[in-house]
Amino acid sequence: MTYLELYNNIMRKKSFLCIGLDTDIDQIPDHLRTKEYPLFSFNKAIIDATIGYAVAYKPNLAFYEAEGAEGWKQLEMTVEYIRKKDPSVFIIADAKRGDIGNTAERYAKAFFVNNDFDAVTLSPYMGKDSIAPFLKHQGKWAIVLALTSNISADDFETLPLTGSIQLIEDLSVLYDSEGLYYTQPSSVGAPLYKSVIEKSMRWGSINNIMFVVGATRPQKLAEIRMFCPNNFLLVPGVGAQGGTIAEVARFGMNKSCGLLVNISRSIIYASKGEDFAQAAAEKAEEAAKEMALYL
Amino acid sequence: MTYLELYNNIMRKKSFLCIGLDTDIDQIPDHLRTKEYPLFSFNKAIIDATIGYAVAYKPNLAFYEAEGAEGWKQLEMTVEYIRKKDPSVFIIADAKRGDIGNTAERYAKAFFVNNDFDAVTLSPYMGKDSIAPFLKHQGKWAIVLALTSNISADDFETLPLTGSIQLIEDLSVLYDSEGLYYTQPSSVGAPLYKSVIEKSMRWGSINNIMFVVGATRPQKLAEIRMFCPNNFLLVPGVGAQGGTIAEVARFGMNKSCGLLVNISRSIIYASKGEDFAQAAAEKAEEAAKEMALYL
Repeated sequence: MTYLELYNNIMRKKSFLCIGLDTDIDQIPDHLRTKEYPLFSFNKAIIDATIGYAVAYKPNLAFYEAEGAEGWKQLEMTVEYIRKKDPSVFIIADAKRGDIGNTAERYAKAFFVNNDFDAVTLSPYMGKDSIAPFLKHQGKWAIVLALTSNISADDFETLPLTGSIQLIEDLSVLYDSEGLYYTQPSSVGAPLYKSVIEKSMRWGSINNIMFVVGATRPQKLAEIRMFCPNNFLLVPGVGAQGGTIAEVARFGMNKSCGLLVNISRSIIYASKGEDFAQAAAEKAEEAAKEMALYL
Repeated sequence: MTYLELYNNIMRKKSFLCIGLDTDIDQIPDHLRTKEYPLFSFNKAIIDATIGYAVAYKPNLAFYEAEGAEGWKQLEMTVEYIRKKDPSVFIIADAKRGDIGNTAERYAKAFFVNNDFDAVTLSPYMGKDSIAPFLKHQGKWAIVLALTSNISADDFETLPLTGSIQLIEDLSVLYDSEGLYYTQPSSVGAPLYKSVIEKSMRWGSINNIMFVVGATRPQKLAEIRMFCPNNFLLVPGVGAQGGTIAEVARFGMNKSCGLLVNISRSIIYASKGEDFAQAAAEKAEEAAKEMALYL
């Protein structure tokens, strides 16, 4: 799928909603647990009920791998089902993979050849070698983790780098007992996630590189739009984690929308009863209606 | 497995060899490809031939996921087979996962509960949230990517940080046209991978945290031993990528060995013919014999 096709799908559905299929065997309604394919049965009902409101679905692979080979099979069935139901839907493997060379190529095969995912989420830690193999697949996307929505994103993602030249208006110099001096570190350095975005933007194009930026720090979306105006952003953290659609749209939207806002638990687990799909549809409709206001 | 048990296994086998089961359906001998379980058949023969020389095996998940549910099943069969053959062998899921909270817990379930892996490789980008859930599992290990063996490790892993105070013996200050000044960035900052090691060392203990450090930059092993003297290091990059056992031992060994040196392709694909297992055994024996010299 190209950037323009994704934008057209968003405008047609009047929604930039991505539904996270974090389908947890311990969270799905009891009556589904005895089915032959419980994860798929749940997903099928959710998809049937919400596909009018969602431009994207994002299964998180952890929940399928936790069920072993049977889980992997149900992941494959889910992708096939979405594709058959609405070929225009953007399907994201939330895998957060990050490996290199022939290994990365095997992951690309798993997601893009054996399964018809449109995109895969990737961790940038190992650099270009871990992203580039995914970009060789025509029409497929790499979604690179940049600034995630969790608290410990501050452990590394926001650490300041000396790699890029930074303006220092108030440079403090301290002398130690031997007369050697230190800088005051807090005043310098762009954060690691900025370097991740700036570098990896150049490895592909707006047609195949997207970034994960959490909704939990909406002002950061505005900062990121200063140096990354055009790429799509995949935005988790709305709902259970505290972000809002309004803030994400205000700070993160560009002239081609440029946003996929992911909501998982507050849609798919809106009800734990037999009405779970209907409850999910209501939540998805509510989110999509709000999104339409901003488009 | 504890640190001490791992050390004892190393001393008993006189080897710190980890064999990477990067079992690629396109690389295994032709006569295996028609079997019901080609990846497992290959692995079984390799394991039977090499288990006397290896203290650890490391399947890379990409190669199994590329074969879908059938591949996942053969991964499970491989882990069971190793465990039955020699319960003391350390089994690493080379998954390079990195996700948070309940998602990370699901991955931990997949590797540590549903399958009897001893360890999983993890990407540190998202911080403590993505490592800690794995450390809750008694006797299991998190192996955190630090300085990897690929060229593009320099994209992010070695970027200098201003987060830690660094000695600057030669601070250059430049003035711009408005009289504002800049630092010369190259002279400051510890690399990102140092921060990764220093922080994540504290999230667990030497009994459950290990780091990936590539053999391709042996001098860096000596530097890392300055601030991380005790943790085990998992060292890829020997063989096909150019690192040597001698250099890794010289710069990276500590008083409890502290090393697992991984070799994949140059052992498992030593021959592409029907004698592949015998050829692998010869290469593994050769590596183990060299390792014994350094123990």
